[in-house]
Amino acid sequence: MRILVNIAYQGHGFLGFQIQQQGRTVQQQFEKILKRMHRRHVRIHPSSRTDRGVHAYEQYFHFDTELNIEPKQWKYAMNSALPEDIYVNSVKQVDDTFHCRYDCVGKRYRYKVYQAEHRNPFESGLKTFIKDDLDLVKMNEAAKHFIGTHDFTGFCSQKTEVESKERTLYQSEVVKTDEGFDYIVTGSGFLYNMVRVLAAFLIEVGKGKRQPNEVPELLKAKNRDNVPFTAPAEGLYLEKIYLDPEALKNDFGEDVKIHYKKSLQND
Amino acid sequence: MRILVNIAYQGHGFLGFQIQQQGRTVQQQFEKILKRMHRRHVRIHPSSRTDRGVHAYEQYFHFDTELNIEPKQWKYAMNSALPEDIYVNSVKQVDDTFHCRYDCVGKRYRYKVYQAEHRNPFESGLKTFIKDDLDLVKMNEAAKHFIGTHDFTGFCSQKTEVESKERTLYQSEVVKTDEGFDYIVTGSGFLYNMVRVLAAFLIEVGKGKRQPNEVPELLKAKNRDNVPFTAPAEGLYLEKIYLDPEALKNDFGEDVKIHYKKSLQND
Repeated sequence: MRILVNIAYQGHGFLGFQIQQQGRTVQQQFEKILKRMHRRHVRIHPSSRTDRGVHAYEQYFHFDTELNIEPKQWKYAMNSALPEDIYVNSVKQVDDTFHCRYDCVGKRYRYKVYQAEHRNPFESGLKTFIKDDLDLVKMNEAAKHFIGTHDFTGFCSQKTEVESKERTLYQSEVVKTDEGFDYIVTGSGFLYNMVRVLAAFLIEVGKGKRQPNEVPELLKAKNRDNVPFTAPAEGLYLEKIYLDPEALKNDFGEDVKIHYKKSLQND
Repeated sequence: MRILVNIAYQGHGFLGFQIQQQGRTVQQQFEKILKRMHRRHVRIHPSSRTDRGVHAYEQYFHFDTELNIEPKQWKYAMNSALPEDIYVNSVKQVDDTFHCRYDCVGKRYRYKVYQAEHRNPFESGLKTFIKDDLDLVKMNEAAKHFIGTHDFTGFCSQKTEVESKERTLYQSEVVKTDEGFDYIVTGSGFLYNMVRVLAAFLIEVGKGKRQPNEVPELLKAKNRDNVPFTAPAEGLYLEKIYLDPEALKNDFGEDVKIHYKKSLQND
């Protein structure tokens, strides 16, 4: 049977989600526990493969098992064995046709920045520090320009290898917080480094080095050289995974365009 | 000339303050920078050698230099070269007879606990998690019993090797916070693991497993076997270093008993 697991983790101590030859990864932590329980290797399949240092308030993975264990017991067994920087929020059994990556119709990220006179060592690894004053109104104006379906070639890593670089953003906004701002972005999917490139661009807008009305041209130009920065991983949080088109419709309206992942190569 | 440096650090990523054969320590980070600037090894002398995982809102060290650099420039040079989890708060020149350890007449620690339904991966390394309900009033009552001059043999690591295990606590209190409680303790000095043993004992009181009125007997018994727990390092913050008896008098009254460190072997 197929088990779906909803987890959260602090990314600071991990080389990312995906297993590596060496070093601590989220996948490795779970597969170690599942191997002990199954006495064989059990592979887990995540909705999103977060990069080194990226956090998750909500991330999903699924795996197949022959063990007859109740969801509540799975949760308890995993949380008892996991390190302090990962937590299993919930577990449920799903249909064998369900797939965490292909059934993911949307994701929300939050990019967190704190602004202060000087950096705070206690925010290290958890938020990005920016000393400068930023024009949040202009940043939000620029952020709104990204909403809709666009080719994001100009706003992702040049290493991105996917069939199509078109993605749909349902939400893209800059919100003031007590200590700085959050950039919140929900989309059908995201290209490699896309949120960090968008965040870096918006910070440039905040500093007055770019203008909100440049966005349409930059999208059209499809040239990453125009947008040279990538904001650090430490401020990036995967916040929500939409596994159900209805949930996306609930949040963004009935007429929201749903993009099914089965048609996308890599996301 | 002698330079005094006031620093803060997140302890999570360090094996402690003191340099080790292998691994990342706070001392190592500074000595690496100073070596580059002096083209020779320069040793730094801290007020307190915090353990692995222990944080500092305020810690001091001094070093001797022949370089003619202004305090502001020292601060800038070090902060530019330091990793994100250490920050230099301030730098000043001091008299050559000043010594960070021997002139330290008091220290304040804060032990931070969060209470919740389940552990929060984003507090990992930063606060200690306790699921149980705790009786904070009783804990505070017990904490008060530690104020004054006592032999703390029963409340420190059995590995502690010092001439005298008598220390004076000026403040010892449990304060409710939004998410749990802080235990705040100021003393002339602290034995090895002492704050973590005190915190663990107070948590036992909070759970109803120990009583506040046991404290006088336990102090008298001088037997660590009576107090078997040590709270984890991640909740412990070095908060203030008193380098001036006047500052201690300001905070705790004119008639406060000042203990000079020159007479103590190790603290």
